[in-house]
Amino acid sequence: MVGTRPIRHDGIDKVTGRAKYANDVQVPGHLHARILRSPHAHARILSVDTSKAEALPGVFAVVTGKDFPEVTAILREQTEGAMANMGLLSRHLMARDKAWFRGHAIAAVAADSPYRAEEALALIDVRYEVLPPVLDALEAMKPDSPIVIDGLMTNTSRTTRAGGISAPGEDAPQSNIATTFVMELGDLANGFELADIILERDYHTTAAHQGYLEPQSATAFWSADQHLTIWTSTQGPFAIRDNTAAVLKLSPGQVKVVPAEIGGGFGAKLNITIEPVAALLSMKCGRPVKLTVSRTEVFEAMGPASPAYVHLKMGVTREGRITAADARMIFEAGAIPGSPVPGAANCMFSPYAVPNGRIEGIDVVVNKPKTLSYRAPGAPSGAYAVEQMLDEFAERLRMDPLQLRMLNAAHEGDRRINGVACGPMGFTETLEAAAATEHYRSPLEGPWRGRGVAGGFWGNATVPASVIAGLLPDGRVSYIEGSTDIGGTRTTAAMMFAEAVGMPVTDVRPTVADTDSIGFTSNTGGSSVTFKQGWAAYEAAQDLKRQLIERAAKTWEVATDRVGFEGGVCTNLDDPSKTLTMRQIAARMNATGGPIIGHATVVPRGVAGGFAVHIADVEVDPGTGKVTVLRYTCVQDAGTAIHPSYVEGQMQGGAAQGIGWALNEEYVYDAKGRMENSSFLDYRMPTALDLPPIETHIVEVPNPGHPFGVRGVGEATFVPPLAAMGNAVAHAIGTRMQALPMSPRRVLEALAGE
Amino acid sequence: MVGTRPIRHDGIDKVTGRAKYANDVQVPGHLHARILRSPHAHARILSVDTSKAEALPGVFAVVTGKDFPEVTAILREQTEGAMANMGLLSRHLMARDKAWFRGHAIAAVAADSPYRAEEALALIDVRYEVLPPVLDALEAMKPDSPIVIDGLMTNTSRTTRAGGISAPGEDAPQSNIATTFVMELGDLANGFELADIILERDYHTTAAHQGYLEPQSATAFWSADQHLTIWTSTQGPFAIRDNTAAVLKLSPGQVKVVPAEIGGGFGAKLNITIEPVAALLSMKCGRPVKLTVSRTEVFEAMGPASPAYVHLKMGVTREGRITAADARMIFEAGAIPGSPVPGAANCMFSPYAVPNGRIEGIDVVVNKPKTLSYRAPGAPSGAYAVEQMLDEFAERLRMDPLQLRMLNAAHEGDRRINGVACGPMGFTETLEAAAATEHYRSPLEGPWRGRGVAGGFWGNATVPASVIAGLLPDGRVSYIEGSTDIGGTRTTAAMMFAEAVGMPVTDVRPTVADTDSIGFTSNTGGSSVTFKQGWAAYEAAQDLKRQLIERAAKTWEVATDRVGFEGGVCTNLDDPSKTLTMRQIAARMNATGGPIIGHATVVPRGVAGGFAVHIADVEVDPGTGKVTVLRYTCVQDAGTAIHPSYVEGQMQGGAAQGIGWALNEEYVYDAKGRMENSSFLDYRMPTALDLPPIETHIVEVPNPGHPFGVRGVGEATFVPPLAAMGNAVAHAIGTRMQALPMSPRRVLEALAGE
Repeated sequence: MVGTRPIRHDGIDKVTGRAKYANDVQVPGHLHARILRSPHAHARILSVDTSKAEALPGVFAVVTGKDFPEVTAILREQTEGAMANMGLLSRHLMARDKAWFRGHAIAAVAADSPYRAEEALALIDVRYEVLPPVLDALEAMKPDSPIVIDGLMTNTSRTTRAGGISAPGEDAPQSNIATTFVMELGDLANGFELADIILERDYHTTAAHQGYLEPQSATAFWSADQHLTIWTSTQGPFAIRDNTAAVLKLSPGQVKVVPAEIGGGFGAKLNITIEPVAALLSMKCGRPVKLTVSRTEVFEAMGPASPAYVHLKMGVTREGRITAADARMIFEAGAIPGSPVPGAANCMFSPYAVPNGRIEGIDVVVNKPKTLSYRAPGAPSGAYAVEQMLDEFAERLRMDPLQLRMLNAAHEGDRRINGVACGPMGFTETLEAAAATEHYRSPLEGPWRGRGVAGGFWGNATVPASVIAGLLPDGRVSYIEGSTDIGGTRTTAAMMFAEAVGMPVTDVRPTVADTDSIGFTSNTGGSSVTFKQGWAAYEAAQDLKRQLIERAAKTWEVATDRVGFEGGVCTNLDDPSKTLTMRQIAARMNATGGPIIGHATVVPRGVAGGFAVHIADVEVDPGTGKVTVLRYTCVQDAGTAIHPSYVEGQMQGGAAQGIGWALNEEYVYDAKGRMENSSFLDYRMPTALDLPPIETHIVEVPNPGHPFGVRGVGEATFVPPLAAMGNAVAHAIGTRMQALPMSPRRVLEALAGE
Repeated sequence: MVGTRPIRHDGIDKVTGRAKYANDVQVPGHLHARILRSPHAHARILSVDTSKAEALPGVFAVVTGKDFPEVTAILREQTEGAMANMGLLSRHLMARDKAWFRGHAIAAVAADSPYRAEEALALIDVRYEVLPPVLDALEAMKPDSPIVIDGLMTNTSRTTRAGGISAPGEDAPQSNIATTFVMELGDLANGFELADIILERDYHTTAAHQGYLEPQSATAFWSADQHLTIWTSTQGPFAIRDNTAAVLKLSPGQVKVVPAEIGGGFGAKLNITIEPVAALLSMKCGRPVKLTVSRTEVFEAMGPASPAYVHLKMGVTREGRITAADARMIFEAGAIPGSPVPGAANCMFSPYAVPNGRIEGIDVVVNKPKTLSYRAPGAPSGAYAVEQMLDEFAERLRMDPLQLRMLNAAHEGDRRINGVACGPMGFTETLEAAAATEHYRSPLEGPWRGRGVAGGFWGNATVPASVIAGLLPDGRVSYIEGSTDIGGTRTTAAMMFAEAVGMPVTDVRPTVADTDSIGFTSNTGGSSVTFKQGWAAYEAAQDLKRQLIERAAKTWEVATDRVGFEGGVCTNLDDPSKTLTMRQIAARMNATGGPIIGHATVVPRGVAGGFAVHIADVEVDPGTGKVTVLRYTCVQDAGTAIHPSYVEGQMQGGAAQGIGWALNEEYVYDAKGRMENSSFLDYRMPTALDLPPIETHIVEVPNPGHPFGVRGVGEATFVPPLAAMGNAVAHAIGTRMQALPMSPRRVLEALAGE
């Protein structure tokens, strides 16, 4: 079963348009909500007068920041162990004293039609004192910069989300620098002394949209019995439940979240954005409220990946061995703390054995929306620096760039700069596989052409999951899980369960349940789903098998250890002519002891990181600056590829998104902080016409810590492409840009030496 | 917790109109279905031409009996152990060669609007050969009667649903008598010899509508991936799943049934009626199909309780001891076999020790729709005979009628006529409680007034149930069950779970799940729900408690037997100052081992019957014949009353329905088999204005076979009222009618000696 390519269980629903997305949810009698957003990137809110809007017939509820309770809780996020400052998150959901960015929600209206809601927005009178905005992390760090969050104090933990606000009147130094941390290993000075070549460079990656096609949509209904139900497009229904409860001062058991099918998330739908606004409107009027944002709102208010500045210094010996690495990374958090700079720090050197190292991470707030996760958050920006510098070393040493990487590849037990020992590694095997591809062995010839390679690492995550596997009367199994399906994980979970039981995968019927109907299951994020669902499926299968064996033993009046089980069939070991299939046991289960339900709740250990190596061939038009991707190959260690088509799809999708970020994607702001390209017409994502067929090579170095050898595949693939493309373009044009995007204008500037 | 009266969990939803009933289900793009029904009570179908209907624009599917597969399976119904002849049931869903009753479905249409569907029905050309109908069981038993079902052979098992059809051409005797059976105990002839008084009488009860307010409604969607989803108003989602699969030759694992809230069922919504028709239409056109019937269709095609003829002969000694009882019961099954005559036989003498007895049961088909269950199916008709005859004995012996019953009350271990030994009995206590009521101790004076008492028994049922109880992060519990809630059973289940855990019932959040999301749970019928859900709740609570204790033990690093648990709080027995509440354990569960889910699947034993005694005071207007109920009291052994308000509500509801059946309700047919009163205007159910406040006295003789002492309460209350009213009217008018309804016209006829 594992390693085959069955049709996905939700395929028919999706291709026929029957799958139910959040905007398809129609709760009888629901109202339509719209949000009034700040036209200023930075402004003090002097007053908000909603009286005219409230008086408009057909308007049922108006909320402003004042309607949100004051919350100070620091909530431990159950997926990542990171902390979120709920007070700031609440203020980001809807502004209080200040608007932090253009698009910051000021008020929201629920009315009997969307047109009426928009009419009401126009009647809300907001008086602002416009303040100068700060739009760039480097500017925001300057002592004379405008302060985004009044009273924000710098913290020095390794998590960027704690933050701290000085009490009113307290004479504490306020700053836009939310977090600084340092990780150190070995003796850095000594390491550089051992180096024969030392390079020191600055790299810059821009903001990038996660590119999900479906804007956020949520419907909330607050019942008179004090229960809140939320239907929403999310990667993490349990996080939506817990964080909505936290910002609205409800108890999480009062909240049920029903996840819809999801039209893309890529990290942007892990946490609350609009759900508490819809909920608060419903709490005010007692009716269901539906809130769907527009594409422009997505761009202006939902948050892209963090822009990043990386200053990197590395040294290598003549033989190509890395002796030292020193990185300073400044990540833009957006309006409130929480960039993925820790993720970048944890991943950037992880494929390599770096004996002496130091990483400084800095999280900076600016007058833009809070940045959100985007596939392997932070890691592509870190790899963009490290993998380009390694490319330069290889050039100088006249070494094959894969060879240089193989020389420095980390192995199990090596200590990383963050102090963590490497787990089971598949990087060397991935490099070897990349070197062996037909693509890499084919020379690339011709002017204005270049080939780049880059490696990448993602740690993958392990977090709780729950499964209920009920035996149906015909021997099929209803498989209830809590992981929303963003990449075919219904099918991979069903496959692993089928494998563990020994039954056909078509007889497993997976359903993603709401938060009341299944135990806690962490976000569909961190490349965790196949890993944790694999464990949950395995354990639930054991539970089911145990019960099947018990029933067979009862039927035959033998001890359970006299019953064999293989391929979904029980065999009487004392008389092997006697067998009972799952279907036979299922047909009689009510008569032999009652319904049979396997279940499992797991917080699995044994996670292992994933590694990817990408090879990019490009051709640059020196007249227009346009970069054409001639050929692109992804090689990745999947541990075990449960459903190879989905692994390939993940590899291709990550490469496509990375190519887009590398070449064209950027958020363009004017001086006042207004985004100038807030549509898919002006924000240039790659289309099928921009990309060659992306070749894939799956490497399988099974993870010994997982029953099926799974590592996790969704994110590692997104780490190398920025650097691979950077290296390819550098070789094509003979100069290294070190900043994204490598758009035609920028390429022409680089060619002109600007 | 047990014995308190908390607010029901679904109360707010229901009083605010938010609760979702089957007709509220709106599947995007659904079609509207209508059924063409036979205008003849008995007719051979010569041809059905649907071509014009199919050609009508906007019509998506037309089905006739020919579209149903031939099925011969005899399905064991998982609730009652009874057998259903699926071939006949399928033909009852939609006619093939013959229309068996007026209203029998001939064809169905799915179209883009209900009006279009009706227009299409009018275009279907059916040619009938009209046959003489037989509308009464006694007529149908005559040798020269028209034969309803071609080839039906009489079977002699104790279940009425097996039936048998002779093969075409086989020369077997065909009959309208589907079943005859005999139960015998002791020596009947000797018993009558020992008697000092022997009475022999005929009794007749009419058809009665279950009185559910919500007509049947179902939406079905057949997906291209060969899965069928059905949203329906049902007491038994799993029976709908299994029987829909059987008649459509699907595997049950291909079918998911989503139960809606239910606007009354009382036994009529236990099995498939319209679901397979909606499903077949959807299978033909691939779109969701919604089918909601009208009130007239309910009356003409959905089936009432069986009319019954009971011939009864009993003997008693001078002291009032029953020496012998001989009953012959003829029940109308409607068009296909399956009246509840076995239920009547099992219950009629069960409150009493009858040393010598014989019961003959006869199940007869006629040209009317298949009768359906109605609360304690069969038992009211049996009690109507027995309890009136006991009243006559008491009169003749000048004994108090309750005293006579106490003298004959059965006790645990006594053998019944059906061969079953009596379980734990509460009948004597119920009789004593009735005798002690202020009502019974108050004399009833005045002309044309009469008091009647009657007892009744219902065996209650025990069948499988499944529960999943997930701990929410604030210590609340999401309680997922498979029992549809027709009488507040969400709350009673939550109460028993809360009691077993020692937590507040408001912290238990019950949800009725679909058939994929919970293990098999038998019908909400047979007064089984509180019994089986109590067991399931108890077992799930033990499972949850075990896990809570494990977590506490892990936290304190002690053995699990060093952890006490009471009132939802774990205590460290080695250091009682250390405690952990459920909420505290819940808040950290992901860190201490993962989500916590209690679950249970049960097929409980230990069921015990319920007993009721009713006291009715009536006054008859000799001028109009109208019977006014002056006072009415119900006394019932509930075992343990989990939520006394619901027990009282069940007692009152059963009495109200029984009074209606006794006084006014009847199905009036013309000679051609056309029902003449097929609306709630003409079918006279009692209203609030017709009834006095119904007094209730709960007796609690706990069932030792249940963790909370539950017996089951919904049906026993419906057994005495026909007889109690019959006795009261007999005493008021001085003559015994022995037939229902005791409507003004019939009372006047009785007074006139007609």
